[in-house]
Amino acid sequence: MSKRSTNGKSAPSGLVGNAVFAQSGGPTTVINASVGGAVLEAMKHGKLIKGLYGAKNGILGVLQEEMFDFRKESLADVKGLKLTPAAAAGSCRYKVKTEADYARIIDVFQAHNIRYFFYAGGNDSMDTADKVARLARDKNYEMCVVGIPKTIDNDLACTDHCPGYGSVVKYNATMIMEAAKDTEALYTTDTTTVQEVMGRNAGWIAAGCGLAARNEEDGPHLIYIPEIPVSLNTMATQVREVLKRIGRCVVVVCEGCKNEKGEYLSEMGGEFGKDAFGHKQLGGVGEFVGSFIEKEIGVKARRNKPGTLQRAGMHWASKTDVDEAFMAGAAATRAAAAGISGHMATLVRKSNSPYVCTTGLAKLSDVANGESLLPREYMNEAGTGISKKFRAYLAPLVRGEVKIPMGPDGLPMYVRLKRKLMPKKCGEWKKA
Amino acid sequence: MSKRSTNGKSAPSGLVGNAVFAQSGGPTTVINASVGGAVLEAMKHGKLIKGLYGAKNGILGVLQEEMFDFRKESLADVKGLKLTPAAAAGSCRYKVKTEADYARIIDVFQAHNIRYFFYAGGNDSMDTADKVARLARDKNYEMCVVGIPKTIDNDLACTDHCPGYGSVVKYNATMIMEAAKDTEALYTTDTTTVQEVMGRNAGWIAAGCGLAARNEEDGPHLIYIPEIPVSLNTMATQVREVLKRIGRCVVVVCEGCKNEKGEYLSEMGGEFGKDAFGHKQLGGVGEFVGSFIEKEIGVKARRNKPGTLQRAGMHWASKTDVDEAFMAGAAATRAAAAGISGHMATLVRKSNSPYVCTTGLAKLSDVANGESLLPREYMNEAGTGISKKFRAYLAPLVRGEVKIPMGPDGLPMYVRLKRKLMPKKCGEWKKA
Repeated sequence: MSKRSTNGKSAPSGLVGNAVFAQSGGPTTVINASVGGAVLEAMKHGKLIKGLYGAKNGILGVLQEEMFDFRKESLADVKGLKLTPAAAAGSCRYKVKTEADYARIIDVFQAHNIRYFFYAGGNDSMDTADKVARLARDKNYEMCVVGIPKTIDNDLACTDHCPGYGSVVKYNATMIMEAAKDTEALYTTDTTTVQEVMGRNAGWIAAGCGLAARNEEDGPHLIYIPEIPVSLNTMATQVREVLKRIGRCVVVVCEGCKNEKGEYLSEMGGEFGKDAFGHKQLGGVGEFVGSFIEKEIGVKARRNKPGTLQRAGMHWASKTDVDEAFMAGAAATRAAAAGISGHMATLVRKSNSPYVCTTGLAKLSDVANGESLLPREYMNEAGTGISKKFRAYLAPLVRGEVKIPMGPDGLPMYVRLKRKLMPKKCGEWKKA
Repeated sequence: MSKRSTNGKSAPSGLVGNAVFAQSGGPTTVINASVGGAVLEAMKHGKLIKGLYGAKNGILGVLQEEMFDFRKESLADVKGLKLTPAAAAGSCRYKVKTEADYARIIDVFQAHNIRYFFYAGGNDSMDTADKVARLARDKNYEMCVVGIPKTIDNDLACTDHCPGYGSVVKYNATMIMEAAKDTEALYTTDTTTVQEVMGRNAGWIAAGCGLAARNEEDGPHLIYIPEIPVSLNTMATQVREVLKRIGRCVVVVCEGCKNEKGEYLSEMGGEFGKDAFGHKQLGGVGEFVGSFIEKEIGVKARRNKPGTLQRAGMHWASKTDVDEAFMAGAAATRAAAAGISGHMATLVRKSNSPYVCTTGLAKLSDVANGESLLPREYMNEAGTGISKKFRAYLAPLVRGEVKIPMGPDGLPMYVRLKRKLMPKKCGEWKKA
């Protein structure tokens, strides 16, 4: 089954059945907004889409047959998903690999008359969704599988940008702007600050921090990304140059940064690049670079590592990102209701000034097999700051603040779904 | 010179001369609000207070005779200090210890006819201010020295709470709430999260994170503070108990946490508790506890370390805190204009429900010699969560959000002062 209709209208002659919405991989600030958008849109297609089931903890919830009904949650909570970070249905890192697992997924879908499967995730998840769609077709089980893009990494192919990216940039760029103010205030002793941000393969997040550097005084003064390897010698020279020029230096370093030999900086520590118990350190690139600056240059290096905070910072989300995540979810549902399967909703930038963004569709297989790295032209000549072109690409994605519901204790009121599990119909899942 | 007048009115018969405003120690989200409040208030007392000088980089700016004129900054920038984090005049960690330094301070004050000295800082700074006031009196140099409380640590004596504390709590508690949502979403693999927060001696900041735990499901599930030492055995038992109960565990650990022998946890790593270059690790308590959980319990432990971000998070400041910081600064100026010296402005909680806070005065010497640790009754029986009493104390300090000016790039517009230095009149400072 491929496209049934491309006119975007829901097809009354279409499939009638239940839907499953699943979240996958690392949570983001806005993946709940996407699922909320998809579920609320599905409520408008009640003639086709009956049960609105959430998979508890992503694809594990399908495999383990642990599903709940969004219709049994309060409508206020479902609407509240738009402004709740992380993954309210639950996510997981389980990779579907075996034929037995794929068959199990179809079995569970059949048992519960699931005719619509919405999978919010990155390219691994789109690959899984694609395989589910193909297997269903092979088994003559009619269903629509539609992907919803999600990743803070902004590395999905076929979409202008990914829901989650604008918010992680707004968060990190604001944080680095504030940390740079701190360094500027106290440079006589706390002369450098190193901030580690996420990004294993692509430098989109680290580079995004460059938005905070509106002029040469502003931090970050140096950004290191995986796409542009750097030797420790070069790094030391660059830090010294900044120190000489303005007396302080704020560095952003991406998890996946590599040296000129292609080795991860986070693994360069040798004997001492281990944690307190002798395990090899993984996430410690900021710690490593901070240590390096202190030893090599002899100035104090503060280390900040926002870690999971950067992907859950709904209190400072980009409104543009939240709205687009919601829109992408709703677009996925509309596509499925129109009989489209095997595709992912995409974001399409119609115009940059004024910024206009709409949705489109891409084949799951194209998304699964692509990867979008940061174009070299988005960095400056030295490769340690961003270009005007990237600034123009980035700014619209970061604009706007959300107003989240606040409690009397001065803290946000986020939603927690009840997730009351439905009765099981299949036997127990045997994990491969 | 002690009190000249206590009626709070500016005394036209009072001292006429210039003022210096200096910021000290670690920046905070709201120390600029305090200085802005003090400077703007001083503009109302133009008959007494003439030049409004800022010391560049705190007391170093006085010693090095590097001062600038707030009247030569744009009024918009001076007003914008209220919503700019860190220390716009500049701060430092220099401790005034020698007689020569104190004499130099008075020399510079005399050369520039400084009759008002406002020092925003913690208890070390209040001690310095007190000594400056005493030395001026001994030398028959008439001046008013008034302190402005500043510390995220909330450990100053004689004040209900400290400007800066409400904002660091709002920031950290919101972050841990969001990180806990992330852990809740992905507990099947990323089962625990350890967040390191500031606080060398007092657990006020770490305990403040407990505000996010409105019920047993919410994180943080365990909080460790310096006032309540914990053995690694006990910690392991407590983490296991939480994991058994809800399948995940979010831990807040304070920089200054100690084990049952009084040793800093951050220094317990032995051979491996060193950084990549063999230096002893200092700020690494979160890293240590994360490693410990992974080795001892065998579950993944994510590590977040907001570092300097937590003390510069103006984008998510507590409006109550910002307003009170401004109010404390203005109160300091009003006190000085009324002829009061040798005192610090304090915050006085008149009522908790409704929350009403006003200002008072405390002797600098009383503040300098006191320290406010977290009362045991503010923690629960187990010592790993907070009590209702603390929640009641804390919530009003955290309430309210600020609306900061935003740029077209979706990021905050913070102020950078020009700080054009005035001509020097004294010889060069010889650092002891």
